Amino acid sequence: MNNSAPVLEFEEIRKVKGIKGKDLLDIAINEKIYISSICAGRGSCAKCRVIIKEGHENLSPLTNLEKTYLNKEELEQGYRLACYTKLIGDGYVRIYIPAESRAEPQKMLVSGIQVKTALNPIVKKYFVKLPKATLEDRRQDWERLCDVIKEQVGLKELIISYGALTELANVLRESWAVTVVIRDDKEVLWIEKGDTRERLFGFAIDVGTTKLAGYLMDLKSGETLASTSSPNPQAIYGGDVASRVAFAMKDKKNLKLLNKLVIDETNEMLKKLCGEAQVNPEEIYEVSVAGNTVMHHIYFGINPKYIGLSPYVPTVGEGIKVKAKELGIKVNLEAYSYGLPNIAGFVGADTVADILASGIHESDELSLLIDIGTNTEIVLGNKHRLIACSTPAGPAIEGGHIKYGMRAEVGAIEHVWIDPDTYEAGYKVIGDVKPRGICGSAIIDTVAHLYKANLISENGTFKQDLNSKRIKRETENTEYVIAWSYESAINRDITFTAKDVREIQLVKAAIRTGVTAVMDYMHIHPKDIKKLYLAGGFGTYVDPQSARTIGMYPDIPLERVRFIGNAAGAGAKASLISKGIREKAEEIRRNIEYVELSTYPKFLEIFMKATYIPFKDKLGFPV
Amino acid sequence: MNNSAPVLEFEEIRKVKGIKGKDLLDIAINEKIYISSICAGRGSCAKCRVIIKEGHENLSPLTNLEKTYLNKEELEQGYRLACYTKLIGDGYVRIYIPAESRAEPQKMLVSGIQVKTALNPIVKKYFVKLPKATLEDRRQDWERLCDVIKEQVGLKELIISYGALTELANVLRESWAVTVVIRDDKEVLWIEKGDTRERLFGFAIDVGTTKLAGYLMDLKSGETLASTSSPNPQAIYGGDVASRVAFAMKDKKNLKLLNKLVIDETNEMLKKLCGEAQVNPEEIYEVSVAGNTVMHHIYFGINPKYIGLSPYVPTVGEGIKVKAKELGIKVNLEAYSYGLPNIAGFVGADTVADILASGIHESDELSLLIDIGTNTEIVLGNKHRLIACSTPAGPAIEGGHIKYGMRAEVGAIEHVWIDPDTYEAGYKVIGDVKPRGICGSAIIDTVAHLYKANLISENGTFKQDLNSKRIKRETENTEYVIAWSYESAINRDITFTAKDVREIQLVKAAIRTGVTAVMDYMHIHPKDIKKLYLAGGFGTYVDPQSARTIGMYPDIPLERVRFIGNAAGAGAKASLISKGIREKAEEIRRNIEYVELSTYPKFLEIFMKATYIPFKDKLGFPV
Repeated sequence: MNNSAPVLEFEEIRKVKGIKGKDLLDIAINEKIYISSICAGRGSCAKCRVIIKEGHENLSPLTNLEKTYLNKEELEQGYRLACYTKLIGDGYVRIYIPAESRAEPQKMLVSGIQVKTALNPIVKKYFVKLPKATLEDRRQDWERLCDVIKEQVGLKELIISYGALTELANVLRESWAVTVVIRDDKEVLWIEKGDTRERLFGFAIDVGTTKLAGYLMDLKSGETLASTSSPNPQAIYGGDVASRVAFAMKDKKNLKLLNKLVIDETNEMLKKLCGEAQVNPEEIYEVSVAGNTVMHHIYFGINPKYIGLSPYVPTVGEGIKVKAKELGIKVNLEAYSYGLPNIAGFVGADTVADILASGIHESDELSLLIDIGTNTEIVLGNKHRLIACSTPAGPAIEGGHIKYGMRAEVGAIEHVWIDPDTYEAGYKVIGDVKPRGICGSAIIDTVAHLYKANLISENGTFKQDLNSKRIKRETENTEYVIAWSYESAINRDITFTAKDVREIQLVKAAIRTGVTAVMDYMHIHPKDIKKLYLAGGFGTYVDPQSARTIGMYPDIPLERVRFIGNAAGAGAKASLISKGIREKAEEIRRNIEYVELSTYPKFLEIFMKATYIPFKDKLGFPV
Repeated sequence: MNNSAPVLEFEEIRKVKGIKGKDLLDIAINEKIYISSICAGRGSCAKCRVIIKEGHENLSPLTNLEKTYLNKEELEQGYRLACYTKLIGDGYVRIYIPAESRAEPQKMLVSGIQVKTALNPIVKKYFVKLPKATLEDRRQDWERLCDVIKEQVGLKELIISYGALTELANVLRESWAVTVVIRDDKEVLWIEKGDTRERLFGFAIDVGTTKLAGYLMDLKSGETLASTSSPNPQAIYGGDVASRVAFAMKDKKNLKLLNKLVIDETNEMLKKLCGEAQVNPEEIYEVSVAGNTVMHHIYFGINPKYIGLSPYVPTVGEGIKVKAKELGIKVNLEAYSYGLPNIAGFVGADTVADILASGIHESDELSLLIDIGTNTEIVLGNKHRLIACSTPAGPAIEGGHIKYGMRAEVGAIEHVWIDPDTYEAGYKVIGDVKPRGICGSAIIDTVAHLYKANLISENGTFKQDLNSKRIKRETENTEYVIAWSYESAINRDITFTAKDVREIQLVKAAIRTGVTAVMDYMHIHPKDIKKLYLAGGFGTYVDPQSARTIGMYPDIPLERVRFIGNAAGAGAKASLISKGIREKAEEIRRNIEYVELSTYPKFLEIFMKATYIPFKDKLGFPV
């Protein structure tokens, strides 16, 4: 350790070298010490709370912003927001990262629904036998191979990849019986000696904002041989797409950096999956990528900047193919990486995958699909017509802006119920450990149960005439205690505040506004909706009754609700084993109508009504 | 300099570090000290003569092979063949490279004939104006561009290069009026802001075994903006294609090495030409490559090994396109490198270019085309039918195997004439300096004039009853003195020996056999041949009368002879400015018939007759 640099000790973790002028979050990220952060240091999520145990004098003074996020008790204990605390002195600083600020393995949804499709991958293998070159038959190798493929397989007007061209002569001289790998009946990607038709593999990846899920697929059987998931390593530069875009905009190098992080992680996944399934990465001939538009663009090295700026236009919507080697993905030298199509800036291939997984594009029934997330996508329609919109629901359902909010990690309360008579609470914790906070599904439960127990009114305010020790009115921010300090892992009461309720009102209002707008656009009444599909990691865990209680969606009978999980992975897999799925995805992209919510005529009126629990006009079209 | 390594001093050049066990030619090549060598150290050309001035004891003993190539006088002077002399001791060695063994700038043919063609390059520029993205018109950038190109240019179903895709958003945000570069009406290679239609460039390269010729072309006007040539740097690994193939076969790394040499030289040429013409390499959107099949394969990184082994089959015959970046050529990131089609292992794109330049594929007249070189290609036919064959004429016409033979460099005698009465000789030297040796054209002249002066007989032997001081009979290898030692730069008589005559008999017999075989195959009599095209660097300088005198080709009136120079460069240029030329080249490749000479039924009979001067049967079909 450099003697001249100040020493920072992260208690229970390790000592690191401090860099003067940098904030504590930055220093921790550089040292791969993970502190929770959703807003990437923009001071808006207040998740990066740390306790300074020693060395206050070496740090920048407390800011007003921190004073609004931290209460008196916390300030006395030495709490700071890591992203607002700069190292300014040369002395020793000791920092404790409390349990609620530690980033832990998240509850991740890898499986997803299976999209039904016939096995018909875009890459295929054919075994052919060539007549040996002789002085009497001196056709060039490539012309000879073309003749034989035309004769024995029936494909013509083929092209050959550069890599295959340079290897062709050597492979043929080892064996005149070869297996050719042909993509889209058009390009000979590779030539393998002998008959290797049984071994043909693909890799599908769902590039989520928060996590990556990878699948090694057998393209001969359509089966998933192995799957894995890991956090999206870009998360250290911001928890949501907006902060990734902002980071990419800040400096030209940042796009490369974000791209490299996710490509490196892809290669790690490939190494792991290939090891497990005993597949040589060179036997992987196609990579299929699904994600939201920003993740898609960054994955393919395309600047997402203009997705983040009005009028929020992506570079490309249609499905794209790029040689995997251009991206640095370590599979066969000439394999392609295919990116599923995007509909708009905030409606990406993940939504196309949702539609494919739900099947609404092929159904007569009118269906509503909601993929709930920081950015929520809504699709309404059937096989005749599809309408999509997107709505920035904000990070609250991932735990952001919520006092004890956290991601769906071990230690998060995932479900809450309140007895309307006693006002007592029950809850369930992920991993069955002592709770550290509450995650999205429990947050929705809490608001629903506070409303059903008559603890809060239609406009979200706590009622005044309540008498329960669960209600704390010590500050103007009234709180309901979900878990007492002795039950918790953080030695403090885990509460849900009046401000938290308002945050969720905004989230659900944003979603409800989108739902209402697409229904209004199509002149649809809730009773016309025959199916409601809830998608996305959050959509899988949320209690649909709680969501309906707070008015996140209109009054649709619960038996019409279907969960399709995280469809992006299923979409990537399906597009790998079926060309038809790619064509369908393209068709969906071309035909779907996109409604821009921010310029929708009745936007403000609907939004205002939607902030009420469950909605201002309980009756009447279109709610 | 490493003290433990032996020191070699190349007199007048520099001292270098010696490596024990290596031969002097190898050491010199590694140090970029150029010693003439045609056979690449196989001990067959005897061109790498050096004089050891000091340190004989540190070198391997004189070999029998050297004793056959070097005469008594030379051995006394300390002559050795550098490729057969190994460094074995630790002491100092001083080496002198005599004038005749120094590689000097060669006489090079850059211009070539112009192939007539309409201006219609495969890459074109279009200027389009896009409606700006707004909240009302949120088409993605690529979809928007496609719509506009369809509307304003009429092209549809376009694809976009990966590089252009990653830059698209940025370019459009700088200007919604852009110039798109489109290849083959299909792929958007690049997008430039504003109207840049006036600047569209291409690079054509003729990859000769001995030299490279590069041309910077203006694709808007079809004009050559600048041209340059340089020796093919691969020549240090062998002067002819056979030795390049042999070198590539020896070790896997060698193909890469040969490829890198020629690509590096390409980039040097590009730098020079772009500097001269004030063109940014990124404005070059297509590279066109012509050469013989071996040069073509090495240029594109394809192993030429199997061209060198029976049945002499190349990897690919049809025209190929490979992204220039795959080859490391520094032009626009997404430009393609196009290789003109090859007909067979030893009939390459250079021959296709010869045909295009001569126009015989479009003529009613029956024509004969001979591209004379170490490997000589012969084409006979007209627009109805074309027959090609190739014949390994050997290196003698490039100066190999000829006692004072040398390449057509400064100091080479290029023309010789002999007075049939006095037997006195006259000559002309390239660069008008004192001669160091004689090059191909003069070698043919010498044999023709020795024959016409009745100094040699039909079977090539010197007549016995001659009385002239020009005839030296000191050894059994009778010599004719072309230049006396006092006239020469090497202080020795420059002579032409009986053995030299025999070498040329073999060369011309090889060529004449090919010519006779294709004529026999088509049942053609010399009088039917309306045009004789002589092609290639050698074909341009040779005196057609001398060539006819020795019987290199049948008795065709001299007024029917046409010179088309080195057509490969012209072919590369034409294919750059015209798509039509590429289609024609492909048509030629598909339709031409190839006659394999070595398996031709009458081969030995014809060859035997062809060794006579001018031919055994002076009358009668088919000569």
